[in-house]
Amino acid sequence: MNPPQDSTDTVFEPDDPRVDGDIQDPAEHFRDLINEDQPQLAVAFLSQMYPADQGLCLADLGRSQKNEALSLLSPEHTAHILDHLSPTEAAQLSYGVDAGTLSAILDASSPDVAADVLRYLSRQQSEQVQATMSRLEPVLPLLQYPASSAGSLMTTECPQVNINASAASALDIVRLRGDAAERIGAVLLVDAHHHLEGSVSIVRLALARPDTIVSQIADAAVHSVAPLTDQEECARLMERYSLHYIPVAEPDGRLLGVILVEDLVDVAVEEATEDMYNMAGIPGERVTGPLGASILHRLPWLYINLGTAFVAALVISAFESTITRVVALAVFLPVVAGQGGIGGTQTLTLVVRSMALGELPGRRGMRLLAREVILGLVHGLLLGLAVALVAGLWKSNPFLGLVLGLAMLANMLVAGLAGAGVPLLLRRLRLDPAVASAVIVTTFTDVCGFAVFLGLATAMLTALT
Amino acid sequence: MNPPQDSTDTVFEPDDPRVDGDIQDPAEHFRDLINEDQPQLAVAFLSQMYPADQGLCLADLGRSQKNEALSLLSPEHTAHILDHLSPTEAAQLSYGVDAGTLSAILDASSPDVAADVLRYLSRQQSEQVQATMSRLEPVLPLLQYPASSAGSLMTTECPQVNINASAASALDIVRLRGDAAERIGAVLLVDAHHHLEGSVSIVRLALARPDTIVSQIADAAVHSVAPLTDQEECARLMERYSLHYIPVAEPDGRLLGVILVEDLVDVAVEEATEDMYNMAGIPGERVTGPLGASILHRLPWLYINLGTAFVAALVISAFESTITRVVALAVFLPVVAGQGGIGGTQTLTLVVRSMALGELPGRRGMRLLAREVILGLVHGLLLGLAVALVAGLWKSNPFLGLVLGLAMLANMLVAGLAGAGVPLLLRRLRLDPAVASAVIVTTFTDVCGFAVFLGLATAMLTALT
Repeated sequence: MNPPQDSTDTVFEPDDPRVDGDIQDPAEHFRDLINEDQPQLAVAFLSQMYPADQGLCLADLGRSQKNEALSLLSPEHTAHILDHLSPTEAAQLSYGVDAGTLSAILDASSPDVAADVLRYLSRQQSEQVQATMSRLEPVLPLLQYPASSAGSLMTTECPQVNINASAASALDIVRLRGDAAERIGAVLLVDAHHHLEGSVSIVRLALARPDTIVSQIADAAVHSVAPLTDQEECARLMERYSLHYIPVAEPDGRLLGVILVEDLVDVAVEEATEDMYNMAGIPGERVTGPLGASILHRLPWLYINLGTAFVAALVISAFESTITRVVALAVFLPVVAGQGGIGGTQTLTLVVRSMALGELPGRRGMRLLAREVILGLVHGLLLGLAVALVAGLWKSNPFLGLVLGLAMLANMLVAGLAGAGVPLLLRRLRLDPAVASAVIVTTFTDVCGFAVFLGLATAMLTALT
Repeated sequence: MNPPQDSTDTVFEPDDPRVDGDIQDPAEHFRDLINEDQPQLAVAFLSQMYPADQGLCLADLGRSQKNEALSLLSPEHTAHILDHLSPTEAAQLSYGVDAGTLSAILDASSPDVAADVLRYLSRQQSEQVQATMSRLEPVLPLLQYPASSAGSLMTTECPQVNINASAASALDIVRLRGDAAERIGAVLLVDAHHHLEGSVSIVRLALARPDTIVSQIADAAVHSVAPLTDQEECARLMERYSLHYIPVAEPDGRLLGVILVEDLVDVAVEEATEDMYNMAGIPGERVTGPLGASILHRLPWLYINLGTAFVAALVISAFESTITRVVALAVFLPVVAGQGGIGGTQTLTLVVRSMALGELPGRRGMRLLAREVILGLVHGLLLGLAVALVAGLWKSNPFLGLVLGLAMLANMLVAGLAGAGVPLLLRRLRLDPAVASAVIVTTFTDVCGFAVFLGLATAMLTALT
């Protein structure tokens, strides 16, 4: 029997006793072997794994260890590993690799993988690597497409067949393309000017009479994207219409390449992760990344939040004389802020995620806003009643309960309004609705919540004391 | 030319002028036609769309309209639509459909789609529908697999070929299976007892000499999953190793079916959404769902948070006499709580998401905890310095600045510790690390933050006043 789908000769099964039993963490074991100056053993150990796992082991190493390990592998071997990684993983593996080593590896890679890696390097590093590459020509046109565009995701190695060819000659082209054709499962049909005309599955080709003209058994390729189409849109099309691949063509119809569904699984997962991280204020972070990068990622967000927290503090400060007279008000400040923040986050998360999933076309915005305001009203009434009772009984002051309950009602209304309104507005302004929305929403709920709570308390001061 | 990949004859392109120009929202236009009592026009309009879009239009209707529309479509037509939806979308479409209509539709569906729909119905509804189904036999064994298991995701309609068959006879089976074989792009090889022995791509079959024995050109099927394997694990395997499909086999090796990569794009997206919604306290919600369901989803979480907010209020209440003497302390309570909450959320989001992506094997837990505590220390020092300066200058009280700065330091440490520790602990206890972690983490940061801030203030009361 041959080796399994895309893997090397001997493989590491996930439940292989070598992984779960003797060797706890293959990446650590590999690093230990490198550190113990046993490079031959390390490479032999590495080669037992699937290419994707080899990539993770290598990406995990420090700079000098990584360069040492890569010097023991052939550029072709490393290029084969890169083929099996997502663009971000490939970039992580390439991080810190000497320019000379990297250019030899990229020369041995497919052009789209090389372009992915170069796209993630700094401008200076990228130019250094390109200067020593010998197979740069097919890579350059791909570099013009920005990261996360269809052009950056596509593979250019797709089997193209003239629309007037016979099934037999189409199969000859499949035979030549081998691997790439097997992955797509189809050939793309073009006219004499390389304009996309349709596609035909290899199964259908194989079952057709050899002299059949391919146009007679073809599918019209209605779903295709432009090279600058955003990857999120590509993922949505593929998911929506259960496509296995999607051709990328110039607006004039000239075929450029094809995006495979497996490359978009990565995209769907990365987009979701990006949204979550943006909302939490940790854009682009990784658990395995260096500590300094984490600090740089998180600090700006923490300082921005600190700034807005001081705005809320200003509001409270304006009512210091009221608090002096009814100090119990201070006890409930975090209750007001906390509930508003949580209500706002609930709405915000729902809206941001639904936008990402394409469930919220622009015209539904107003209906959504109304829906969330109604929800805020209902939640505000129910929560307001609860806090009014608890606080009123606890501090034996029904007026305190009333003020807190009303503040809660107002705050939940603001939470619904801002939680839905802010991402809708950001999208209207063509900004990413995930990026800064959480801090804006909580600022709204904090400021409005404190203003209503302490404002009402000041107005009812004689009843409260 | 034939119609495009899996679609009906005339199609709606995303940039079709009918969609963006005259008819703003196809779903609304369709509903209007139904409401205007023009069922024939409505069905004609619907049939122009891709099956997946037809499904969304139908799912959007109210109960009686939906039943009316479905009565105009043949059960085969609706079954074809269901085939193109994700399991949750199929469940949404089936919601509220009369038992008799639904059983006719499921009789015309593939067994795994029928099982998906039945799995989402209430026990009573499911039994009602099953009672009138005539093709229940192939569905029943699938119903035993819980939702989100490999067994519930697989399609049983996969082409199986005996390992000793010739390439020619394998192609005959492909010819018979048609659509299913085309989707998988491969046939699965089994021995006489239907035990999985490997697979061979259809491209390779087509290119082989007709009398070649398939075992000679086969891939050993190293990656297979058990029917009870969780869908998250399946998605991880497919993404990691860029698989197009993954066979599902009993532990003894008997082949049950195959999961296709396109079904796992849905899974990857749904898992990410689920994590985000669980963390925000809106499990299982949809923007398009009924208002009452949203209230039921969000209220428990809001009340739980209210409970923990009162715990934090208790801490503040214990220091009321201190606040009476230094009322400026009240001004900074939300600053302490807010920053701790945000720091905790940053760590928590990173950890929960990394766990979901399989980037955090159990043995890395302690290293991660140490990393986040160090980050908390660094952030605490930098933020603490900033708040100490601002608050000290603002209130012209350096001791107030000192107390606030120290509280910030302590709070960011707690944020790192709880943000990483809570999800790690939840996972160790085999609970979902996303579900209740946010409320636990913010309770920790609130309580510790207030205790340190007000405790220090009380200790330094003479210096503060």
